[in-house]
Amino acid sequence: MSHAGTGTENSGASARIQSSVVDKRAGRSLSGPGIHAVVDDFVHGRVPGYQMAAWLATVACRGLDRTELAALTEAYVAGGERLRLERVGGVVLDKHSTGGVGDKLSLIVVPIVAACDVAVVKMSGRGLGHAGGTVDKLESIPGLRLGLAPEEMYPVVRRVGMTIVSQSAALAPGDDATYALRDVTGTVESIPLIAASIISKKVAVGADGLVLDVKTGTGALIPDHAMATRLAETMLQLAGDFGLRCRGALTDMSQPLGHAVGNALEIKEVLAVLRGEQVPGVWEACLVLARLMLQSADPALTDAEADAKAEKAVASGAAYDRFLAWISAQGGDRRVLEQPALLPGSRHVLPITADRPGWVRTVDPRKVGMAAVHVKAGRLSHSAPLDHGSGVVVARRVGDRVEVGETLAELHYNDGDAGLATRLLTQAFDIDDERPAPPPVIHRVFDSPVR
Amino acid sequence: MSHAGTGTENSGASARIQSSVVDKRAGRSLSGPGIHAVVDDFVHGRVPGYQMAAWLATVACRGLDRTELAALTEAYVAGGERLRLERVGGVVLDKHSTGGVGDKLSLIVVPIVAACDVAVVKMSGRGLGHAGGTVDKLESIPGLRLGLAPEEMYPVVRRVGMTIVSQSAALAPGDDATYALRDVTGTVESIPLIAASIISKKVAVGADGLVLDVKTGTGALIPDHAMATRLAETMLQLAGDFGLRCRGALTDMSQPLGHAVGNALEIKEVLAVLRGEQVPGVWEACLVLARLMLQSADPALTDAEADAKAEKAVASGAAYDRFLAWISAQGGDRRVLEQPALLPGSRHVLPITADRPGWVRTVDPRKVGMAAVHVKAGRLSHSAPLDHGSGVVVARRVGDRVEVGETLAELHYNDGDAGLATRLLTQAFDIDDERPAPPPVIHRVFDSPVR
Repeated sequence: MSHAGTGTENSGASARIQSSVVDKRAGRSLSGPGIHAVVDDFVHGRVPGYQMAAWLATVACRGLDRTELAALTEAYVAGGERLRLERVGGVVLDKHSTGGVGDKLSLIVVPIVAACDVAVVKMSGRGLGHAGGTVDKLESIPGLRLGLAPEEMYPVVRRVGMTIVSQSAALAPGDDATYALRDVTGTVESIPLIAASIISKKVAVGADGLVLDVKTGTGALIPDHAMATRLAETMLQLAGDFGLRCRGALTDMSQPLGHAVGNALEIKEVLAVLRGEQVPGVWEACLVLARLMLQSADPALTDAEADAKAEKAVASGAAYDRFLAWISAQGGDRRVLEQPALLPGSRHVLPITADRPGWVRTVDPRKVGMAAVHVKAGRLSHSAPLDHGSGVVVARRVGDRVEVGETLAELHYNDGDAGLATRLLTQAFDIDDERPAPPPVIHRVFDSPVR
Repeated sequence: MSHAGTGTENSGASARIQSSVVDKRAGRSLSGPGIHAVVDDFVHGRVPGYQMAAWLATVACRGLDRTELAALTEAYVAGGERLRLERVGGVVLDKHSTGGVGDKLSLIVVPIVAACDVAVVKMSGRGLGHAGGTVDKLESIPGLRLGLAPEEMYPVVRRVGMTIVSQSAALAPGDDATYALRDVTGTVESIPLIAASIISKKVAVGADGLVLDVKTGTGALIPDHAMATRLAETMLQLAGDFGLRCRGALTDMSQPLGHAVGNALEIKEVLAVLRGEQVPGVWEACLVLARLMLQSADPALTDAEADAKAEKAVASGAAYDRFLAWISAQGGDRRVLEQPALLPGSRHVLPITADRPGWVRTVDPRKVGMAAVHVKAGRLSHSAPLDHGSGVVVARRVGDRVEVGETLAELHYNDGDAGLATRLLTQAFDIDDERPAPPPVIHRVFDSPVR
């Protein structure tokens, strides 16, 4: 282990962050300039990873008050790029999900909203562990470019009303640097650190309205219901502190979202929903999120009016057309969407069947997600390669009746450890004699904009 | 920032320490094997500094229960050397102080106890920041060798009844590795981490009895009285959990200990006390610590009997002779002790005088310690060079009466920033119209051996 810096500048930074660790541990408030200095010193290499790791771990234990949280968020954005959405013109919305297993909602909701003539700019990430990522799913589509510079995004949004691009580190350099460290130091699961990370990027995007989808349940980033609620409330308030009008929903992640888990499999499900198939769990959630977005653009819209608009956008084919137009606008090959059989697929499909009759009580989203990882539909380390054709199709949901020999799920695979994946899938299903109440799709809606 | 390891072994270690961080933060107990694995992985380079820093910061926030604390202490010692004090023969004691400004008590107490025919083996460290270190003080003496291997120590103890050597990293490799990291990550001030660090080395020494001197007050490692008491109780219990018979005292560090602060200056004060000068603050503390050590060797000894032995050891010159015999046994030049003018000195002596009459209410030990640091009697970084001749002589103590122009302290210096040191010394003294009650020298004695 080497010591932190030798120059005067670095020894000042070293003393500052150590005092900050001691103060935070002792329960003293950190000043805004103090928090800014810690992040800035780390981003510019004046404090090493081990000092920042101690700081993040201490914050994860002790929390941040409202003022400290806003200061950290501001520090994450400092020195970064900001989008100039005024170049798009009109109202532009942003959407974020805390992610989960089979969460392809953005890919459905964004074209629906765009088809209702409300522009959306969305930055997405990659998956890690049991949860998938929107960028990975979209990379199933040949030719699609997701690494657009801001100047390339604006004309796409002007032309097709939407864009989805991969997260740029340039927007919130402080978040980018600290996230990489949190990811390997057990400091991801912290409400203030999650909130600052997410909202810093939203501040840099600077949309006219933001809709947050916070998941709760065993497959969520924050499984506990009360904690997930607190995360949602914290983010709504924090966004408001930056003048970002924000609505949100607490949605269910106690079982996988819809049937498809895996990259091209999920793109196929997205296309099915955009063509009108009301996939259970997916459609209801999309309708609520689209409603919140449409009301963000037009606060006078009633729930019924918003839902009618979204339903019409799907029924008329406008949302589907919008999705394909967007894919083309970013260089994607729309023929593979018109003929989904051209998307990456798998050579093997293995059914997992029920060994007893009864009602499905549990479909463990983490086990399903990890089964997908073991056939390379997901990854355990950032650098692991993906198989875009593999994954899981979940045939039964909580509350469904099954008989012996009926299919619970299918494992789609090319390589990886199909044996382990099969075991995980088998363990994921719990079948009971009593019929359980299925969990709600939407647990709570935060529908008044916090400011 | 690089990721933690790429091999399978390292990714297992990485996952283990991250789970441990998450579990500890969530309030779940860590298992003994889990704690052992974390320390072992770090010592063997399977987890990087930033992961260990997050772990230490989390432990500093959440604490450790009695079982976890014993496991951490055990893990610190694992794979290290252990002393074989049976090669010395008879009862061998150990002593430890949490340190402070002007704390030269070990150098007086150890020869007193040795002169009473009770052997003592003591490992000491260097100073950092406002507090000095015994090794630095002893290095004022030309020729004295402190880096003795265990095999070299045993004959010294057999011959002169005592040894003081510099701390060996080989005794508690886990403590050594984590201490270096704590030192730069704001995680030093944690009761369980301090207790495990200190007691692990005592376990490796394996003496027949241990006396702990825990300081309390503004100049102490743990200034707060209640926290320092808890540290003392925690260490006594932890030592007992390893079968180490332990007594201790909570002693005052709300003002500097004695007059001398600085390396050769303190050696001169040690010689004066060993020759019978009852330096205020120093002599009373030495008497109590010697009593606890003598009673550790002979539990039947009453306080009065123990004190009489210690007083006689000094009055007879036996303790002084023992100190000089020990210095010679480890290669030191005893002539410089017989003629202290030969010890390193300073070219300049600057008196700091009272600018008003009154009673001394405060002598801030941190300011006095930092004044000494600025004339190079101490150091702010491990690699900074020391001036063994410089330092501070504190002329007045809390409760003393002073008149305008009387000397409060003297700054002894050769180079460094004498201006800054003078300002700090001036600020260190607070003179009041009312006569304050001087603080007790000994706050509490833990005189029954905890086992």
